[in-house]
Amino acid sequence: MTEVRVAGVGLTRFGSHPERTGRDLFAEAADRAFADAGVERDDVGELNYGNFMGALAEHQGHQAPLMAEAAAVRCPATRYESACASAGVAVREAVRTVRSGEADVVLAGGMERMTNLDTEGATEGLAIAADDLFEVRAGVTFPGAYALMARAYFEAHGGDREDLAHVASKNHENALPNEYAQFRTAVSVEEALDSPPVAEPLHLYDACPITDGASALVLVSEEYAAENDVDAPVAVTGTGQGTDRMALADRADLASTPAAADAATAAYDDAGVGPADVDVAEVHDCFTIAEVLAVESLGFAEPGEGIAAARDGLTTADGDLPVNLSGGLKAKGHPVGATGGSQIAELTRLLRGDHPNSEHVPDADVGVAHNAGGTVASAVVHVLEVAE
Amino acid sequence: MTEVRVAGVGLTRFGSHPERTGRDLFAEAADRAFADAGVERDDVGELNYGNFMGALAEHQGHQAPLMAEAAAVRCPATRYESACASAGVAVREAVRTVRSGEADVVLAGGMERMTNLDTEGATEGLAIAADDLFEVRAGVTFPGAYALMARAYFEAHGGDREDLAHVASKNHENALPNEYAQFRTAVSVEEALDSPPVAEPLHLYDACPITDGASALVLVSEEYAAENDVDAPVAVTGTGQGTDRMALADRADLASTPAAADAATAAYDDAGVGPADVDVAEVHDCFTIAEVLAVESLGFAEPGEGIAAARDGLTTADGDLPVNLSGGLKAKGHPVGATGGSQIAELTRLLRGDHPNSEHVPDADVGVAHNAGGTVASAVVHVLEVAE
Repeated sequence: MTEVRVAGVGLTRFGSHPERTGRDLFAEAADRAFADAGVERDDVGELNYGNFMGALAEHQGHQAPLMAEAAAVRCPATRYESACASAGVAVREAVRTVRSGEADVVLAGGMERMTNLDTEGATEGLAIAADDLFEVRAGVTFPGAYALMARAYFEAHGGDREDLAHVASKNHENALPNEYAQFRTAVSVEEALDSPPVAEPLHLYDACPITDGASALVLVSEEYAAENDVDAPVAVTGTGQGTDRMALADRADLASTPAAADAATAAYDDAGVGPADVDVAEVHDCFTIAEVLAVESLGFAEPGEGIAAARDGLTTADGDLPVNLSGGLKAKGHPVGATGGSQIAELTRLLRGDHPNSEHVPDADVGVAHNAGGTVASAVVHVLEVAE
Repeated sequence: MTEVRVAGVGLTRFGSHPERTGRDLFAEAADRAFADAGVERDDVGELNYGNFMGALAEHQGHQAPLMAEAAAVRCPATRYESACASAGVAVREAVRTVRSGEADVVLAGGMERMTNLDTEGATEGLAIAADDLFEVRAGVTFPGAYALMARAYFEAHGGDREDLAHVASKNHENALPNEYAQFRTAVSVEEALDSPPVAEPLHLYDACPITDGASALVLVSEEYAAENDVDAPVAVTGTGQGTDRMALADRADLASTPAAADAATAAYDDAGVGPADVDVAEVHDCFTIAEVLAVESLGFAEPGEGIAAARDGLTTADGDLPVNLSGGLKAKGHPVGATGGSQIAELTRLLRGDHPNSEHVPDADVGVAHNAGGTVASAVVHVLEVAE
């Protein structure tokens, strides 16, 4: 089985792009990825593309052929949708496609436009990632769902809003130098605590923003890289996916995310590494509590101890295991269908040493990306390693 | 590389199911597939699920975890969307997953609910499979788009409405004994010709209906089948996928479907067979002209000769190459996200000899399924063969 290498990564600035079309955003990300990779577009064998709510936000389904055209590739193109894990699943299938020899080069990524919806439209659009019959019609929105998870966590393990505010403040701090981040503004713990409530115990600065943006990765086989003198020092060595019951009411425990734990176990096994080997991670912090749950599901902290990870410094930029050096969904932004690809792009930059925050992880060899859909009914975990 | 076998197939009746939920429909199809297969659900390694317009029709995205629950499987679950080829892509990835050894057993299929929308809602929903910016906003609907293709075909090659009426009449005839078909009513060539116009030259009986329904397949490796005494006499020996420009205005020719030709070439190469080896086919006849184009793209007739295939008897039930013995999308119905799986289910039944129309193809060894998305911007082709 060949090793999969990240030959190139490309991102748009995350934020509000009212003047841009979805295909324009993905084209920009793809252009950057090809320029970074030095790979010919004619060599691309497949396009795996993530998008979540294009049917609602842009009245556009069937986006894969459009994005193949936007990226100027001629090959089978497939859209993946797994809510906020859409691009993670697209990347995972790309990894498996290269490994199986079906293609030597795959373009993978995603795009979402969300800011063209008003707040109500975006909230309703995001809600299609929850169970319409048994959650949404009962009034559940995503801030409400994650608030339930935060309350369950506090009840099971303790912790409080101030612990969560440390997550927010850390990720805003990390986003400051990131040229692709939506918010490059510092937020203190006090400011986070003082922000208006959204769904108690979650306040405004516990939530990620509504974002437009795109991500693209050029993944190649190690043989292709060698034969074509492609500089691709980072390998995707592990991939895993997990699925849980959709509705929170159907789960035994709201204070943990077993789909992410399943995905992590599979990805670690695949890579032959464990949590203790990980030097840096990008995790799905759509809400601050989600980062806490991710840190535990990935095995970086025991159940009940993830809540203290940011406050105590484990996951800060100069901690033992920096989490979300990109700024995370929280501050970098969360264009839903692009996020899973963006995480891999940021990790690749961090491991290559060309990320503005690489200085915090100069010796990092192993990185983990954690992408979740809905209230973690879906999860995808990837392990990246420096290969050369 | 292991051979992939179809261990079991399951369908709901296609039609109008106003009292059923989507998960209920998929559960029924999955129940039938597992009963047919005699495979334990615990052995399922992945679920690949196709759905097109759930965000619009049911306010439900992120359907894969819901359908894993409905089918009572615990495994990574992924939704594929490629317009009307959504389930075809889901099946294709399932085939590749079994071949690569990632899983020995994959549940693949799809579901669509459409009749809960009114005609305008369904037409608008289907339109998200076309280019919103450059087609839909200019007034293009799918009947209109296929009417343009029919006009281009007539102009390039000749043919007329009566040729198309033979396709409609043939497929309605084929659907008569099919217990899963939406329309089990004969339609004569004259009745088809006399039906009201929708978009000239296409009339009502040139179009497939709006349909609710689900499909499910249990795909296994040949080793799994042998070790578990699973009777799975039909193999999926070829898979191919093609992608074209989305907008009709961007294509060189409207009288052919190169994405389907690309998919067919890849699938035939994969299986090591050619069009002359094929005994029976299920093709994507969302409109009668689409069957004509499919017959040519699959190599069953030269360009310009597919128009006569039904009229002259090549593709009738007792012709040399029966096409759409199930009744096709035209008469069996077209629950968009389920159709690609339904075609494989029907072909499997035909090749096993347990389809009500198997009597027409008693010696069939090789079958082909052709599933298309949009105006064939996406296409997936599979080759099935009797393995034992």
